[in-house]
Amino acid sequence: MYRTLFLGSFLLGLPVVANAFDNDVMPVPALAQRGQGRLALTGDFTVAFKGTGNPRVKHALDRALLRVEQRTGLTFARSSDGEYLAGRKPGDSSLVIECESLGNDIPALGEDESYALAVSPTQAKLHAANTLGAMHGLETLLQLVQSDADGWFIPAVSIEDRPRFPWRGLMIDVCRHWQPMEVIKRNLDGMALVKLNVLHLHLTEDQGFRIESKLFPRLQQLGSDGHFFTQEEMRDLIRYAAERGIRVVPEFDIPGHATSWVVAYPELASAPGPYVIERKWGVKDPVLDPTNPQVYDLLEGFLGEMADLFPDPYLHIGGDENNGVQWNANPRIQAFIREHSLGDNAGLHTYFNGKIHAILAKHGKKLTGWDEILHAGLPAGSVVQSWRGPDGIAAATRQGFPAVLSNGYYIDLCYTARAHYLNDPAPEDATLTDDQRKLVLGGEATMWSEWVTPETIDSRTWPRTAAIAERLWSPAGVRDVPDMYRRLAVVSRRLEEAGLRHEGYLDPALRRLAGDGASGTDLAALRVFVDVLEPVKHYERGRQQPDHTQFTPLNGLADCSRPDSAASRDFSERVEAVIRENNIDEGELNRLVETLAAWNSSADRLTNGLAAKSPRLEEALPLLRSWSVAIRIGRDSIESLRTGKAASPEALKSELAELELAALPHAAAELPIINSIRRLAVAAAIRDQRRALDDEAWLRRLNELTGAEKPATSRH
Amino acid sequence: MYRTLFLGSFLLGLPVVANAFDNDVMPVPALAQRGQGRLALTGDFTVAFKGTGNPRVKHALDRALLRVEQRTGLTFARSSDGEYLAGRKPGDSSLVIECESLGNDIPALGEDESYALAVSPTQAKLHAANTLGAMHGLETLLQLVQSDADGWFIPAVSIEDRPRFPWRGLMIDVCRHWQPMEVIKRNLDGMALVKLNVLHLHLTEDQGFRIESKLFPRLQQLGSDGHFFTQEEMRDLIRYAAERGIRVVPEFDIPGHATSWVVAYPELASAPGPYVIERKWGVKDPVLDPTNPQVYDLLEGFLGEMADLFPDPYLHIGGDENNGVQWNANPRIQAFIREHSLGDNAGLHTYFNGKIHAILAKHGKKLTGWDEILHAGLPAGSVVQSWRGPDGIAAATRQGFPAVLSNGYYIDLCYTARAHYLNDPAPEDATLTDDQRKLVLGGEATMWSEWVTPETIDSRTWPRTAAIAERLWSPAGVRDVPDMYRRLAVVSRRLEEAGLRHEGYLDPALRRLAGDGASGTDLAALRVFVDVLEPVKHYERGRQQPDHTQFTPLNGLADCSRPDSAASRDFSERVEAVIRENNIDEGELNRLVETLAAWNSSADRLTNGLAAKSPRLEEALPLLRSWSVAIRIGRDSIESLRTGKAASPEALKSELAELELAALPHAAAELPIINSIRRLAVAAAIRDQRRALDDEAWLRRLNELTGAEKPATSRH
Repeated sequence: MYRTLFLGSFLLGLPVVANAFDNDVMPVPALAQRGQGRLALTGDFTVAFKGTGNPRVKHALDRALLRVEQRTGLTFARSSDGEYLAGRKPGDSSLVIECESLGNDIPALGEDESYALAVSPTQAKLHAANTLGAMHGLETLLQLVQSDADGWFIPAVSIEDRPRFPWRGLMIDVCRHWQPMEVIKRNLDGMALVKLNVLHLHLTEDQGFRIESKLFPRLQQLGSDGHFFTQEEMRDLIRYAAERGIRVVPEFDIPGHATSWVVAYPELASAPGPYVIERKWGVKDPVLDPTNPQVYDLLEGFLGEMADLFPDPYLHIGGDENNGVQWNANPRIQAFIREHSLGDNAGLHTYFNGKIHAILAKHGKKLTGWDEILHAGLPAGSVVQSWRGPDGIAAATRQGFPAVLSNGYYIDLCYTARAHYLNDPAPEDATLTDDQRKLVLGGEATMWSEWVTPETIDSRTWPRTAAIAERLWSPAGVRDVPDMYRRLAVVSRRLEEAGLRHEGYLDPALRRLAGDGASGTDLAALRVFVDVLEPVKHYERGRQQPDHTQFTPLNGLADCSRPDSAASRDFSERVEAVIRENNIDEGELNRLVETLAAWNSSADRLTNGLAAKSPRLEEALPLLRSWSVAIRIGRDSIESLRTGKAASPEALKSELAELELAALPHAAAELPIINSIRRLAVAAAIRDQRRALDDEAWLRRLNELTGAEKPATSRH
Repeated sequence: MYRTLFLGSFLLGLPVVANAFDNDVMPVPALAQRGQGRLALTGDFTVAFKGTGNPRVKHALDRALLRVEQRTGLTFARSSDGEYLAGRKPGDSSLVIECESLGNDIPALGEDESYALAVSPTQAKLHAANTLGAMHGLETLLQLVQSDADGWFIPAVSIEDRPRFPWRGLMIDVCRHWQPMEVIKRNLDGMALVKLNVLHLHLTEDQGFRIESKLFPRLQQLGSDGHFFTQEEMRDLIRYAAERGIRVVPEFDIPGHATSWVVAYPELASAPGPYVIERKWGVKDPVLDPTNPQVYDLLEGFLGEMADLFPDPYLHIGGDENNGVQWNANPRIQAFIREHSLGDNAGLHTYFNGKIHAILAKHGKKLTGWDEILHAGLPAGSVVQSWRGPDGIAAATRQGFPAVLSNGYYIDLCYTARAHYLNDPAPEDATLTDDQRKLVLGGEATMWSEWVTPETIDSRTWPRTAAIAERLWSPAGVRDVPDMYRRLAVVSRRLEEAGLRHEGYLDPALRRLAGDGASGTDLAALRVFVDVLEPVKHYERGRQQPDHTQFTPLNGLADCSRPDSAASRDFSERVEAVIRENNIDEGELNRLVETLAAWNSSADRLTNGLAAKSPRLEEALPLLRSWSVAIRIGRDSIESLRTGKAASPEALKSELAELELAALPHAAAELPIINSIRRLAVAAAIRDQRRALDDEAWLRRLNELTGAEKPATSRH
């Protein structure tokens, strides 16, 4: 009944009610409506399947029930063989799952992922055409579980849900810093929780060759420091992903980014060797020689082997950032370009891609690559992944190629969730034709690993990636940033409960950073401090720490700070609320003063105590000084707002100069609150102009005097 | 030079200077003397080997340097192939390692584990006869690394070290709750850090059969819920352990504790089946039938297979806690006992052990078992592991059997580190002959897993096991409990840095327990609360939570509390200091008041806020009430001490009655501070008697009125 009703509203083109009731579900379902009452969740909860058995859904259910037990402390009944008990018949069960088809054992692009979930006070019903939808529905159901003083429950609700885009990915670079199996598996669990369905593994790079070749074992033997996935491990990982409805797309980056390949086979490079594994970051020269037949012999064998190993029809060959240095310097290669009328290096790259395409086609694989593969002659059906920007998407789809957006989803660059969230693969205002829009498959968050280790990678990936997952799943109109942040905080806990360590890594890391001399109070102060810090954004870290190599420990102040500081965001929102209004809210002013006082006490304690005696915290001293400056100016500005005694223009100028210095990053970390303090200082100094201006003009005036934020960009 | 000097003092029988300088090393070295100055530790630190290469020491060094880098943030120089750089010649290097012999690839009982470490301001020299000693020396060196405002350094020191006992073990039960590879590996890292050298794996139990048999795969297929070690994984684990100088002794518990065996083979049990895996705790009936030839057919094959898999010469066959129910009830078995003149069930057990011994002997293995194997006819060379107590050690060694003590080292029972620390396998006052003393091989901490999961097991194992490690390694005279606790807090951080999660698990666990409604302040209050709680001791948890099965989540209040609460110990010490003295120390009184005020604020916040609305914290309410009672009486008693106005005998009586109730455990947790509050109340009430008594008489009087603690006992 409810299905008809809601499918009806889809069919009638009625506006989608994206957030028709308050809930914490992320991504927001396409259609959700609150019902009356709630389904109590107790130890008597049982589940039954309607229709034929479906092992993947059964496994997903087992995992889901275990997670509910872990979260709630409830224990659901089991039989003596350890299986959860079902109700005797569907009508008796708390949850009934009906899944019409088994779907593909290995998920495929474009499979039906829709589901319908109806929760009444007596029963929850989950219906899906396909295994993938049933698994998504279970994740939604789990996110609906909540509690109050009366116990655990699921609110009555009707949900009809389906994804906006079929390709919703997370790319993990396991090369720059090796990321072992356990990291990938827990991230797969996190992906499933927010309905991401593509794990893109970046498996070869200048800094490491991370997959076992049985035909050319010297590749991983000499190119990986022993850190690579065996084929057996990879098969296990692919199974693990498939059990969670996730495709695995492997990337072997050629012809550039190839140093680790030519450690074993220097003769395949475009310049004489020998080569050693690259230990530093940046675009490097080594590139395969497309004029050398041996290159194709090796790739024919290797890619064939990988085509057998990875079941997904898409195989990613990278293709990015060949700087041309080795090709330009090699007369034989330049002669080849002339002899074959290839024009230039770009032509040679296209020639190379053509040869690779032929190899892949033989193995039934479609070619995928970064923007740079988009040359005349790119085979039809190839997928272009755009790291360069919306223009890349437009260019690819204009030529009829399916495209996946990664520009704007570079989570390694430490921008805010907000920035990623508002970045749309096919925004309404983009000048794309309908045909082009159909070719936009979705997007991928990319976690390049120059600056992350297995210890810290989760903290740079989550929870922000959940905001990207919502962008790729939910209707385009779901763009309420405060509501996104509210739900992001909740889903962050669910992700932690599923095994991710984006918060849990911090407590031990701070103890290590603080050293043996730190008291509990010291540690609490350090926590307050790192909570207002952020790691520097974009590629600033490489400029801050140019001497870092693959071996440098990544567990300092920058690594203990996290992107998109919630404490700073909260402070900033409160500052904006205060300075925006015509009438000063004394209560809000007092709360700001309290926050600044607490910060001041932590800053004092660290500056004069722990940081003065601990060698690891020496790097914190400049930032602690900046923090103190910001706190002082913040307090003065609030006092000025309270009393109405504005600072003189000279005093303001001097404060802004101090803040300019305080905004400088140190040790690859920075204080995002400086911007709010700047706005507070300006607002206090020009407070007398407020009444003469309407709200908009006042904000414009403030923005003029404080400067606007720079837009996010990315590369890889 | 220094070696001669210190070996000399050994040889001359001079008293061992166990703690000749302040340091944090645990276990305390046999002999250590502080030198002049310090060796600076910077990024220029290099290491050289003297003599032939030794791969295991090289690997241990690589791991050690990585740990130093992670802790200090320093980066040591590496060559382009990723290897740490050595100084050009030994004289140039910061550390020179000389290891005379490779030792056994698989560590053997009684191998030379000694080492000498000499650190001067210019160089550290590590000398060992054998690989094991070199690895121990590296661990000591790492523990010597410290910092002050001038940076990182190693103090100049001369150390001559060797273990008191050759068998220093940790037993992990992977059956009651499955503990996967990653848990075992990180615990091996922790063991190596504190110089433990035997991992005893309890691999079969009523609740699970956790090792792959290739001959009888139904054993693990039907008996494990899919949770078992494959033989390949076990070989990898044995290698991992050997690389850290640790033997792996497997235990297959027979003939009792055998439910999981007879799920696949009910015909081997002493009563008719069918059987299912046991899901609850306690001593169960199922026992193999020693009169059935098929039992020996299976064991012949299975133990032969295990003898091939596990290289250690000792193979543990359990042998404990056969309750006799099935044997008594089976007329055929009782007839067999009569026909073979075996006397009784004990005789049948001996008969069984004889048959098993013959199987093991054929495979070159020595039999090891719990106390119960000690019957007439036990083959010479068998090792008896005593869970019953010092009498077990005395009985075994009197009959010429080597013995290992586990009684008093049952870390799963949540007693204090102090209790374990003072428990000696061969105490000076024991009535053991010299020959008997030589047969005491050492001891083993035992982590039975009824009440631990992979998430919590570290928090029940560490850091207390480090105190046991010290008992087994350091000279018998090292028994300074406050110094042990001081160093235990430091080594706990080192263990965390090595990958153990005994502290790190808590932060996420508290977030889950607190639920989505908890603020940062709520979480801080909850942290204060669980820090003063302890899980109930001995076998009380089974009484508190009799309905728990293998499937019940273990992440409630009891699991977030940790044994040997440091906050409670600190409070207790401060209370004792105050009440002991003739003159009240006002400053100390004030500090106690501050602590009680902070506790009160947390208790209030939780009682009236979080715990009232969160279903998971309902179980905390009785304990929160008890805490509040204790805080109130503590405050009143301090006020009484301060003013000299003693409570009336009736008022005291009423307070003690309240405390009696408050001391009751709830939700498998309890408040160890109640005892201190009780002593505080009594001391305040009878304060007028203090001046009339000397210190000893006063303490005796207090003890009389407050009751003594009960001694620790154990079983398994």
